[in-house]
Amino acid sequence: MTDREINAEVDIQDHEAGPEEMVSVDPLEEGLSDPVRDLEELVESGDFEALDRFISVLHPADLAVLFSLLSKGHWPQVVSRLSIARVSDLMAELPDHLRDDLAEHLKPDQLTEAIEEMASDDAADVLADLPEPLARDLIEALPEEDRLEVETLLKYPEDSAGGLMQVELVSVPETATVDQTIDAVRANAEEVSTFHFVYVIDDEQRLVGVLNLGALLLAPPDRPISELVKRNVHVVNPEVDQENVAQMFQRYDLVALPVVDDRGRLLGRILHDDAADVLEEEAEEDIMRMAGATTHEPELVYTDQVLKIAGVRLPWLLATLAGLTIPALLVWAFQISFPEMIALVPFIPVIGAMGGNVGSQSSTIVVRGFATGRVDFHNLGGFLFKELIISTLMGIACGVLSGVVAIVWHGDPMLSLTVAVSMVVAIIASALMGVLVPYFFRLVKIDPAIAAGPLVTTIDDIIAIGIYYVVALALIS
Amino acid sequence: MTDREINAEVDIQDHEAGPEEMVSVDPLEEGLSDPVRDLEELVESGDFEALDRFISVLHPADLAVLFSLLSKGHWPQVVSRLSIARVSDLMAELPDHLRDDLAEHLKPDQLTEAIEEMASDDAADVLADLPEPLARDLIEALPEEDRLEVETLLKYPEDSAGGLMQVELVSVPETATVDQTIDAVRANAEEVSTFHFVYVIDDEQRLVGVLNLGALLLAPPDRPISELVKRNVHVVNPEVDQENVAQMFQRYDLVALPVVDDRGRLLGRILHDDAADVLEEEAEEDIMRMAGATTHEPELVYTDQVLKIAGVRLPWLLATLAGLTIPALLVWAFQISFPEMIALVPFIPVIGAMGGNVGSQSSTIVVRGFATGRVDFHNLGGFLFKELIISTLMGIACGVLSGVVAIVWHGDPMLSLTVAVSMVVAIIASALMGVLVPYFFRLVKIDPAIAAGPLVTTIDDIIAIGIYYVVALALIS
Repeated sequence: MTDREINAEVDIQDHEAGPEEMVSVDPLEEGLSDPVRDLEELVESGDFEALDRFISVLHPADLAVLFSLLSKGHWPQVVSRLSIARVSDLMAELPDHLRDDLAEHLKPDQLTEAIEEMASDDAADVLADLPEPLARDLIEALPEEDRLEVETLLKYPEDSAGGLMQVELVSVPETATVDQTIDAVRANAEEVSTFHFVYVIDDEQRLVGVLNLGALLLAPPDRPISELVKRNVHVVNPEVDQENVAQMFQRYDLVALPVVDDRGRLLGRILHDDAADVLEEEAEEDIMRMAGATTHEPELVYTDQVLKIAGVRLPWLLATLAGLTIPALLVWAFQISFPEMIALVPFIPVIGAMGGNVGSQSSTIVVRGFATGRVDFHNLGGFLFKELIISTLMGIACGVLSGVVAIVWHGDPMLSLTVAVSMVVAIIASALMGVLVPYFFRLVKIDPAIAAGPLVTTIDDIIAIGIYYVVALALIS
Repeated sequence: MTDREINAEVDIQDHEAGPEEMVSVDPLEEGLSDPVRDLEELVESGDFEALDRFISVLHPADLAVLFSLLSKGHWPQVVSRLSIARVSDLMAELPDHLRDDLAEHLKPDQLTEAIEEMASDDAADVLADLPEPLARDLIEALPEEDRLEVETLLKYPEDSAGGLMQVELVSVPETATVDQTIDAVRANAEEVSTFHFVYVIDDEQRLVGVLNLGALLLAPPDRPISELVKRNVHVVNPEVDQENVAQMFQRYDLVALPVVDDRGRLLGRILHDDAADVLEEEAEEDIMRMAGATTHEPELVYTDQVLKIAGVRLPWLLATLAGLTIPALLVWAFQISFPEMIALVPFIPVIGAMGGNVGSQSSTIVVRGFATGRVDFHNLGGFLFKELIISTLMGIACGVLSGVVAIVWHGDPMLSLTVAVSMVVAIIASALMGVLVPYFFRLVKIDPAIAAGPLVTTIDDIIAIGIYYVVALALIS
């Protein structure tokens, strides 16, 4: 099993580009020609030589982008022009929901070969996404060693450190010398084509430390590596959540992170680009959840599966619709309680929306603070107090302004006072809710990102209108 | 100028930790003891030996987190215990708004030395953040070579490829052999302590390609590097926006990216961890903008500067408050136009909020699609059509439901029909607006993330209520 994906990191010669490609090709950049259309025209023209030339200069990641934009009808011709190595790269780069489609265009033995070519982590990811019976058959067809690797990796949850790691790495015993280590690197060069470190292990497979290639390059051949090894390195257990892994890469600027079991034995390594993907995926999930758009598959909303997309978005809408019966009832209560004060009613949506807006600001700040480690239970008290001051300042500004509008509009001081006081109280209450609700969700182990979504905005909306009703009852009736 | 920050990537021995630190210390992880309190107690106890021990095992990134949580009163004692190298690391890791505070605790020559220790990109970043006269003095005090480097880097906008790059790198002429290259690496080992590649240049300083260290390690000493060099590498111009740079790292799984001028001459290199920071920063900015919380300094909302924070959040609130006068007027219009149909009024906030919710879903999907390259002008038509189908499905579901509630509540078929039809039309209109507004903002070069914020939600709110009013006029009067 060669290591094509991480190969891409340092070696883009494997896509046979000419020197004219020294400047990055971005097929999606505006202003350039439209590469999707170009590709479609080439397929339709049947000029396979030109098609091959066009495909051969593309980085696998660019090829994957083109495939995701290419109409499905053109897929078979393009797929038929790809080498197994290119199919393997393409499959590793494609978004999850398109891997299935690509697999359908391949014969079983092509598919097996493509998976064999992948790094172990990509192979496991692809197999986890394919339909169960097909995946089973493919695993059975893999050579013994690859099969064991993939089966080991598939045991870990996809969103854990174990699910991110790959087993390909170079390790040497701590008793080795520099030239023995270089021999080990040479012996594994085919298998592990990119390595930032050589891992040093003791006689029980426990990680002792890492050797960086620069140190190896500069050291005399007979030097014992025990004098070069860096012993204090970050490690991670395979059970750790992928979000924590990504945060470690981010905080400590890591390139690669060894994965060890409870007894310190080296199991594999995680590479920086996979950690960066997690970071993006998690930010994406949070954002989508905040918009009430989806939960676990941010990719989905960019596909053509309209029914599935509606299925993911509609529950949020129905939930807020249900919640909105309360504001509707409150408006009705206003109309019944203050039949001669119809001027009170137009301010209801204003106060409700402002509560929602402030609550959404506060909860977003807290939710993102959790995600990036800047907010914690440690500083809840301080955070609440700060939010109290900020929301009081903002509440007074908005309250005074709406009070002025109310008195100019209707000339009724009592109405104006009701509106102003309600606005101030509603904004403060919504801001504090915006802090407390995500904390509460985190405490009970629900993803706090939900707290920045439309559900909580609706709650803030209701609270704000409720406050308005209570203030109106107190001041006017 | 040594290269401490990127050093952290492979070498955490420079913070003198003992082997007990093999497992990552996360000072903010719940369940562990409270390291901020521990540090404060150590400072108050005056036990400097224990304080030194405590500090010495921390990674610079962890030390920076502790500093950002530590009360300012305790800073001087802790700063006084740090070596210049540690101060340098800490300053590079601290969030922008705290660098100033740290600088105040240092003597000018300490500050100069700390900046000298930094990688050129960090030095330029720190100097750009310090007050102008202080920064000028510090630059003047730097050794000639460092001064020129920093001045060169400061010419590039902070958010460009030039602003991200560092000038430290190892380059060799294309005529060199492997052992000459290793000598060049050795000569630069102090200056450039981490390198993933050696850059190969021609006699006019133009980049020819890269050598990876693994290839150097395995090749015989007398081999010409022209046989090993990888000639097709991604490069970037210094003027390119940092967001595009980060997307290149993400798409092509890069570790380092050479920066070249228009004539292909090598200027510097960008490292993956700085690109990852950009990715996080940009996602953060988008999220905050979507919540109407801030624009360019996502960090700010986590500081104690309540006045500044209120200043950043209030404009959004005031803008939506101004926008909300329109729904208020529309409610008033309902009350005037349909004096005997007060049952129409409670549905106003419901329809308005649903419009806002759907619009927020759509615009978030489009805005994030822009940011990650999955949506483009190329597929506007398809995207709009898809959104039309999805929103029609969701609109019918919500419309039928609210129509049923209306007829159960008031038994009036005309009211029920008005509510149902308005809901369907409002949801479709808001969804399409949610797609078109970000496209429009992008077309006129305004950050489309604003389109997913409260301003556009308010517009959707208004449109939805307007539709309700028009439908009511058509069906009822």
